[in-house]
Amino acid sequence: MSILNPDGLYLDDVHVGMRIVTATHLLDVEQIKTFARQFDPQGFHLDEALAADTLFEGLAASGWHTAALTMRLLATMRPTIAGGLIGAGAEVNWPTATRPGDVLRVEGEIAEIRPSRSRPDRGIVLLRSQTLNQLDEVRQQLAAKLVMFRRGSQA
Amino acid sequence: MSILNPDGLYLDDVHVGMRIVTATHLLDVEQIKTFARQFDPQGFHLDEALAADTLFEGLAASGWHTAALTMRLLATMRPTIAGGLIGAGAEVNWPTATRPGDVLRVEGEIAEIRPSRSRPDRGIVLLRSQTLNQLDEVRQQLAAKLVMFRRGSQA
Repeated sequence: MSILNPDGLYLDDVHVGMRIVTATHLLDVEQIKTFARQFDPQGFHLDEALAADTLFEGLAASGWHTAALTMRLLATMRPTIAGGLIGAGAEVNWPTATRPGDVLRVEGEIAEIRPSRSRPDRGIVLLRSQTLNQLDEVRQQLAAKLVMFRRGSQA
Repeated sequence: MSILNPDGLYLDDVHVGMRIVTATHLLDVEQIKTFARQFDPQGFHLDEALAADTLFEGLAASGWHTAALTMRLLATMRPTIAGGLIGAGAEVNWPTATRPGDVLRVEGEIAEIRPSRSRPDRGIVLLRSQTLNQLDEVRQQLAAKLVMFRRGSQA
């Protein structure tokens, strides 16, 4: 394998406590409905009038849309991770609903670094992050397990 | 609040061990690239030639794409859940990469039912599921916390 982005970060370059902040993304009604039509076709994600009368009390983005936008913000951050931003798994929570007009950003911290025992060229990095809007309301909490390679590995 | 789907399932209608199987979804190269351009713009999700030379050894769908398709399959299943399929959070793992040509389905089981202490009209249902392809390869494991309402509640 070759490295997609040879200038990216390696396992050797990160440490527990290292913080990241992404760029922002403005979410509008059309994006919410387009995603919902494809992936989460339910009234509270598709129709303002229907949504008003549900648990959400108004149009809300699918949680998986918030998750996908979080990925976009993380994957387009610079510097990138050498070999790419590769998730093995994640824990995700949506404490409040993401709304039209939200300007989302992701703030995170490396919480844990676990070298792989079976594959010495890599490790798993636990990134804990929050996806926040312009009022610092927490729309998503994410703990993502990322695969990272050691410098000089054939990743 | 009113119920979006009055014929749907209530908390009273489900039990631990109850199993579900969804319809199927055929994933192709164009869908993978379209999702990736929007939400996970990395070489291994966008370009077959670049992907061949990475950890994935070929074009792979974004894990968040697999998650979003899993949501689609669950949300369009019948009978629906009264009030809608509302997730409070989830744990997701991607043991193998989702590939073009995969015919995905979701199989799941209700693993736990926890009535809400503060809100007697509802509870949290833990749904454990696998997203499988036509060869029964596990593309995703998901444990999702769903909000469900009691029959007769004003959900």
